[in-house]
Amino acid sequence: MNCIPLMINGLPGNVARIMAESACQDERFTLVPFSLTGEEITLGQVSVDQTKITLLKPSERENKIHEILESYPGCICVDYTHPTAVNDNAKFYVTHKIPFVMGTTGGDRQELERTVKNGSMPAVIAPNMAKQIVGLQAMLEYGANAFPGLFKGFTLQVKESHQQGKADTSGTAKALVACFNQLGTDFNLSDIEKIRDPKTQKENLGVPEEYIGGHGWHTYTLKAPDGSALFELTHNINGRQIYVAGTFDAVVFLKNQIDTNAFEQKLFTMIDVLTSGK
Amino acid sequence: MNCIPLMINGLPGNVARIMAESACQDERFTLVPFSLTGEEITLGQVSVDQTKITLLKPSERENKIHEILESYPGCICVDYTHPTAVNDNAKFYVTHKIPFVMGTTGGDRQELERTVKNGSMPAVIAPNMAKQIVGLQAMLEYGANAFPGLFKGFTLQVKESHQQGKADTSGTAKALVACFNQLGTDFNLSDIEKIRDPKTQKENLGVPEEYIGGHGWHTYTLKAPDGSALFELTHNINGRQIYVAGTFDAVVFLKNQIDTNAFEQKLFTMIDVLTSGK
Repeated sequence: MNCIPLMINGLPGNVARIMAESACQDERFTLVPFSLTGEEITLGQVSVDQTKITLLKPSERENKIHEILESYPGCICVDYTHPTAVNDNAKFYVTHKIPFVMGTTGGDRQELERTVKNGSMPAVIAPNMAKQIVGLQAMLEYGANAFPGLFKGFTLQVKESHQQGKADTSGTAKALVACFNQLGTDFNLSDIEKIRDPKTQKENLGVPEEYIGGHGWHTYTLKAPDGSALFELTHNINGRQIYVAGTFDAVVFLKNQIDTNAFEQKLFTMIDVLTSGK
Repeated sequence: MNCIPLMINGLPGNVARIMAESACQDERFTLVPFSLTGEEITLGQVSVDQTKITLLKPSERENKIHEILESYPGCICVDYTHPTAVNDNAKFYVTHKIPFVMGTTGGDRQELERTVKNGSMPAVIAPNMAKQIVGLQAMLEYGANAFPGLFKGFTLQVKESHQQGKADTSGTAKALVACFNQLGTDFNLSDIEKIRDPKTQKENLGVPEEYIGGHGWHTYTLKAPDGSALFELTHNINGRQIYVAGTFDAVVFLKNQIDTNAFEQKLFTMIDVLTSGK
């Protein structure tokens, strides 16, 4: 496969930086030395693995994009920017016919989908790039639809631990709780136990020191009230590597779509990326 | 609902006894005071919850069954006998037009299915009556078919603990390992860690004292080799209560089939019982 030119937007943000660093070391990709950023960012350039990346604010990007696309034909964008930028960025990509992977959460998701469907190029939109978690969630959704009430009478307990900076409750935990409730439990989202204290994470849960600042650990416990049965599901993610792998799979999926598809379908999710492996 | 006459076959065996005791206390059922047993059993009667149950050997049952069916019209049989009795018992039920739940494992399963299909009454055949485990297995089978290779590169570790008398490897563990391998792991069934030592069960796993003699605990651990992700699934069953509940659900399902169905389908599994809850 020829190298896919990859423009990673959202630098100097943390996730975009990890994606850019990983892209530099991945022979499937060529990192495009430009990145869309926010109007409020004062930096003009950042270095990623010895490559100088020029940051482009919204007010600057229209003037530059044609030159970029000429230098990097077949360029695919990866978006890890900010919820407030999601919809504008999507319109920018569609206007300039750039296929993209939207890894940023938030914004108006329905408008985002409309933008893609009204455009001419394919995009993968995924609030969670961790393939295995997406697959797990799909399995539980299947079970919840096929066997509603399977765990009727069971109690549910949910614990999730993330880096201290994450204020809101885990979106994955909320999605899975919805499945468990369809399976018969009676669990309130406000009863999800959020663990954000680094000391507790390290000493009680055993989160490795190096991942205290970036992890997503989840455990769901279903118990029969008479003590006759316990079911437990755990998914512990350390660092961002799993999101990098999923994002890059989505990029390769898009490239294959572009190479083979008549673009009847333009809007894709991680489920499409997963099932394409069949 | 009128009481369903329930004939529990396999007394004085342990599982049949638990089923019979539970049936006595369940207002949905009337326990029929007869039970098919093996030719080698020397007891003539057993007591279950103050009810005397007459044991019928294969050589005695043909002479008695008409009288039983006249006294208990609409009787449904539950079979927890012995692998060597599975096929003969099924033929006996079909010959006498008795709907049945086959909870006994082993025997010639293809012949068993043929027997039911060639008969005129419905039957539920289920090697595992624990509804939640059957449902869980269905979810994993769905995932394995939809997302083959999802856990490619992950290592799998499987531990299962059962009462000391269980010599073979857990059938559930083997079935789930097949799913995980389809999901991308490369795991050999012989690497399933079988725990049968009561001391280890109590001290290392924490199996409650009263369930050392009857439990089925399973844990499957998937790890990304770089330590970036861990997925773990546990299902711990204590005692037989979960099998009683599933078996009785299967009986009620059969009763509903008989009351409403034209018997186009005669052979059912626990998946049919589960989805009937929709």
